[in-house]
Amino acid sequence: MTPLAALISRQRPGWTLDRDFYAVPDIAAVDLDAIWYRRWLFVAASCELAERGAFVTLQIGDEPIMLVRGNDDQARAFANVCRHRGSRICAAQSGRVHRLVCPYHAWTYDLDGRLLSDVGAHDAAAEDHGLKKLATAEIGGLIFVSLAADPPDIAPMRAAFAPSFAPQGLGQARIAKQVDYRVAANWKIVFENNRECLHCPTAHREYIRANYDIHLDDPRRADEIAARTLAEARRWSAMGLEPPTLISDMTASWYRVNRTPLVPGFVTESLDGKPVAPVMGSYPTHDVGTLRATVFPNFWLHGSGDHAVATRLLPDGPGATRVRVTWFVDAKAEEGRDYSLERLLPFWQLTSEQDWTLCENVQLGVASRAYVPGPLARVKERNVAQFIAWYLDALRGHATP
Amino acid sequence: MTPLAALISRQRPGWTLDRDFYAVPDIAAVDLDAIWYRRWLFVAASCELAERGAFVTLQIGDEPIMLVRGNDDQARAFANVCRHRGSRICAAQSGRVHRLVCPYHAWTYDLDGRLLSDVGAHDAAAEDHGLKKLATAEIGGLIFVSLAADPPDIAPMRAAFAPSFAPQGLGQARIAKQVDYRVAANWKIVFENNRECLHCPTAHREYIRANYDIHLDDPRRADEIAARTLAEARRWSAMGLEPPTLISDMTASWYRVNRTPLVPGFVTESLDGKPVAPVMGSYPTHDVGTLRATVFPNFWLHGSGDHAVATRLLPDGPGATRVRVTWFVDAKAEEGRDYSLERLLPFWQLTSEQDWTLCENVQLGVASRAYVPGPLARVKERNVAQFIAWYLDALRGHATP
Amino acid sequence: MTPLAALISRQRPGWTLDRDFYAVPDIAAVDLDAIWYRRWLFVAASCELAERGAFVTLQIGDEPIMLVRGNDDQARAFANVCRHRGSRICAAQSGRVHRLVCPYHAWTYDLDGRLLSDVGAHDAAAEDHGLKKLATAEIGGLIFVSLAADPPDIAPMRAAFAPSFAPQGLGQARIAKQVDYRVAANWKIVFENNRECLHCPTAHREYIRANYDIHLDDPRRADEIAARTLAEARRWSAMGLEPPTLISDMTASWYRVNRTPLVPGFVTESLDGKPVAPVMGSYPTHDVGTLRATVFPNFWLHGSGDHAVATRLLPDGPGATRVRVTWFVDAKAEEGRDYSLERLLPFWQLTSEQDWTLCENVQLGVASRAYVPGPLARVKERNVAQFIAWYLDALRGHATP
Repeated sequence: MTPLAALISRQRPGWTLDRDFYAVPDIAAVDLDAIWYRRWLFVAASCELAERGAFVTLQIGDEPIMLVRGNDDQARAFANVCRHRGSRICAAQSGRVHRLVCPYHAWTYDLDGRLLSDVGAHDAAAEDHGLKKLATAEIGGLIFVSLAADPPDIAPMRAAFAPSFAPQGLGQARIAKQVDYRVAANWKIVFENNRECLHCPTAHREYIRANYDIHLDDPRRADEIAARTLAEARRWSAMGLEPPTLISDMTASWYRVNRTPLVPGFVTESLDGKPVAPVMGSYPTHDVGTLRATVFPNFWLHGSGDHAVATRLLPDGPGATRVRVTWFVDAKAEEGRDYSLERLLPFWQLTSEQDWTLCENVQLGVASRAYVPGPLARVKERNVAQFIAWYLDALRGHATP
Repeated sequence: MTPLAALISRQRPGWTLDRDFYAVPDIAAVDLDAIWYRRWLFVAASCELAERGAFVTLQIGDEPIMLVRGNDDQARAFANVCRHRGSRICAAQSGRVHRLVCPYHAWTYDLDGRLLSDVGAHDAAAEDHGLKKLATAEIGGLIFVSLAADPPDIAPMRAAFAPSFAPQGLGQARIAKQVDYRVAANWKIVFENNRECLHCPTAHREYIRANYDIHLDDPRRADEIAARTLAEARRWSAMGLEPPTLISDMTASWYRVNRTPLVPGFVTESLDGKPVAPVMGSYPTHDVGTLRATVFPNFWLHGSGDHAVATRLLPDGPGATRVRVTWFVDAKAEEGRDYSLERLLPFWQLTSEQDWTLCENVQLGVASRAYVPGPLARVKERNVAQFIAWYLDALRGHATP
Repeated sequence: MTPLAALISRQRPGWTLDRDFYAVPDIAAVDLDAIWYRRWLFVAASCELAERGAFVTLQIGDEPIMLVRGNDDQARAFANVCRHRGSRICAAQSGRVHRLVCPYHAWTYDLDGRLLSDVGAHDAAAEDHGLKKLATAEIGGLIFVSLAADPPDIAPMRAAFAPSFAPQGLGQARIAKQVDYRVAANWKIVFENNRECLHCPTAHREYIRANYDIHLDDPRRADEIAARTLAEARRWSAMGLEPPTLISDMTASWYRVNRTPLVPGFVTESLDGKPVAPVMGSYPTHDVGTLRATVFPNFWLHGSGDHAVATRLLPDGPGATRVRVTWFVDAKAEEGRDYSLERLLPFWQLTSEQDWTLCENVQLGVASRAYVPGPLARVKERNVAQFIAWYLDALRGHATP
């Protein structure tokens, strides 16, 4: 048994992970190999690559990636690495090009990655030196990439996401704002924070005004929530939306999508519950609860009737995570006329930034040798336990051979 | 024999250490385990925790610590780590609280570390999840902490320090100023610098005006100093102060306290030798020489009749040390009326900052492969040799098993 | 076979190196041992140490170095490390002194490195504690140093450089400007960039206006260049300058010097081809083509009839190189009267900074696991292949024992 396998088998279900998983560079490297270079990762929204030749770049661990919309309207991801001398090809974060031209010696690639240059002078064949392609999937206006040669089957996730995301209209949305953060906490601490709302009453004053605590231990309150969820479900079905569930669990899965009710009086996730933008996509009305989606290891989204907010995580060593939060509104909405950032942003900007502070506190604490795993709440932190179980399982597959 | 044990046994008494001890991350990690997580460390003055619920936080290597005055007036140190999810509990450097409440999920601890929350929802018992307690000792107005389960016996140090420190009145002092430095030098270089004054004529113009060079090789000058020390000792004894010695050595010990004479004309360690604040504590007069105390690995203090200056070291990797210098005056002294920082600070601020520059030069030199250990002066650097011997001995105990 | 030897033997001639050579700290450490601490390195120009007691300091890897002009007019290099406690002796980047005095305890050395202080109090002998001397060679106004106990034979390089450099007059030149850069690329990427001009048409608009592409594949153009080179060679020989060659190769050597023609209409490497300063050294006229010299691993120079530009590389970990570019003019030239920086600097400042950007792109790309070695152009990148062959050979000698 490798030391990693022994460490994994020592973890106690229902308790937080050992210190090493949050603080040790060697395990951060294992996380790259076992998770970040193997799983499907959210990289960008379809509307960031609306036109042919539009591209977006990003860095995943050591890997510089570019995502390009081809002349056949397909989105494709490539290693952003020239096959000649290894130069990064696209330096900009985004832009639009006709060909992919390396700035070093002008090796030129078509938008599908084929090398167009004559490389005869190099004793090499152009067909052997196309850009390295990465698996890419475009689902409901979201683009996912995997660095693995043989990535997990994404068909079940597509089947679950496509109908739920269709009315949100992300594929033709406008990006109202993107904010980038560097959070001084391991990516797992950031995701664990997302998987429970036990901290919401303490930390998220704004969030809890709009949202139910659907894991309330008080059985009478649970009945009330169940009754409202049932009523909302009937209303949404009448509109042709996908039926919701009461379940926020992700047992045995690495993705989930669901629609949940807001508290009465809130038609959107805004500070006052009133609309902040025109109705989005093909929704018939503002009042559609919230569409919530989660994909391990790097994505979650909250979609209201008039806007949506997506969060993308990327690891930055054992003790930091780069986070991008993106606000979407309907493509036809115009800033100033139809919406203002002052009303659109605060709900999730405040809630997100409150979370980053909580996560940074955890990173500082778990790095201590005095830290020992703590007990997760049976009900209200069960999704944290599920996230940890998923994570350890992904590592287990990696540690065994 | 482990490689570390072999390296230790290769060190030559009376010479500086090999390069690795000053520059290699692996040995900085050994220093944490063998010294910083085992020995008694100065953390704060009693007067920084004057009231019940007052707290101070600090970081020792990877360990976030909080020091809290309890409702029984005891100072207690804890790992600043919540037993639930590992969050740092107190983020502020200092403050005052009624309870210790984690900002994440509001787990609440009494000032003595007991968990007050109901953790039934977690399948855990509150009594098993109190804060991790650290050994704490409050002596003469100074608070020392050890991260070890079984720290060294501090009773002999208490016996030596308590009577000497009593008249200085640190327990009820006022902090006039605290200055924090990050010195780009290994902590041992900083302490070695403190353990000899051979560099004083070259580097400390202000310091040598006030202080004798008590290791002068000239035997006639030695007689003069011995005579003055004897005369001063008689005068201090008549005041009821502890008798001084001529000895600045720390052979076979990790602490020392002593009173030494200033040169005639200097009643305090100030630039002009004249008082800079009202008489401190229970001293009958300004003119009491200087009380000097040293505790390996992180503390020294110079106490004059009207003020005292304490220096606290904390390691920050192989090549850096965080240093806090604290100036104390009598609790009844008021800035502007009884003292001014312009007169109080310069003597030790200048001397300290001169030392940090010297230490940073040494760090740059000893990192070179061209550096080889150099010969310490038999007399004037013998205390450096003693510090090194103490250090190697502490590591030896750690390297053997 | 060690893992390093296996890695070396896996490299394919005519292709770029594996990722590890550009990105891994362990190999950066091997580079220090096998290259930077063994080979001859350009450190400074003679005119930077014009007077007795003049010194220059620099850092090579972990090694702080000082270079001093002695009272016998010899330039000598020493480890900038005091033999007492290891302090760096000279903190300034340059200056002038009568003795070398350590700022810590005033140990004093003569300009030839002898310890002048009485160290009797240390149980040590002064003659055993002189400064560590480094091999030094002054050739054609350039000073080279080796940290090796037994450096490569520099006599052949001296024989090649001395006559070619003599008319350039670097020994009595004026330094018009020095610019320091930190380029975020491995030093080998920076040198590989220098060894080919295949990227010039893409990246160096200014450079290619003045210079022939002497590797043009078009045989008719090659004839034209050969004819012009022959004509220029006759003209230069008539002036008493060393005969040039068509060869820019460095096969089986770690240095080269050559004179090459500029394109007609350019008498110097300036943006418009017109002179930017008075004739330099003992040249009879501005129009002398360009003197080009290269020394692996850290030096190249372009000398025109009126100025010269030297580039010095120093490694800064696996992913960065500190670069100093120095512009020389004739000693009698006065800024404002005889030359202006606005006309002197742009040609090589633009070209250099364009190169640094290219190199930083390569560093970002080759760090990717998607990077695989690429094929070098047979003709136009053959000098890159030679540099790589030289480098691997230097490592091979180091990896075998």
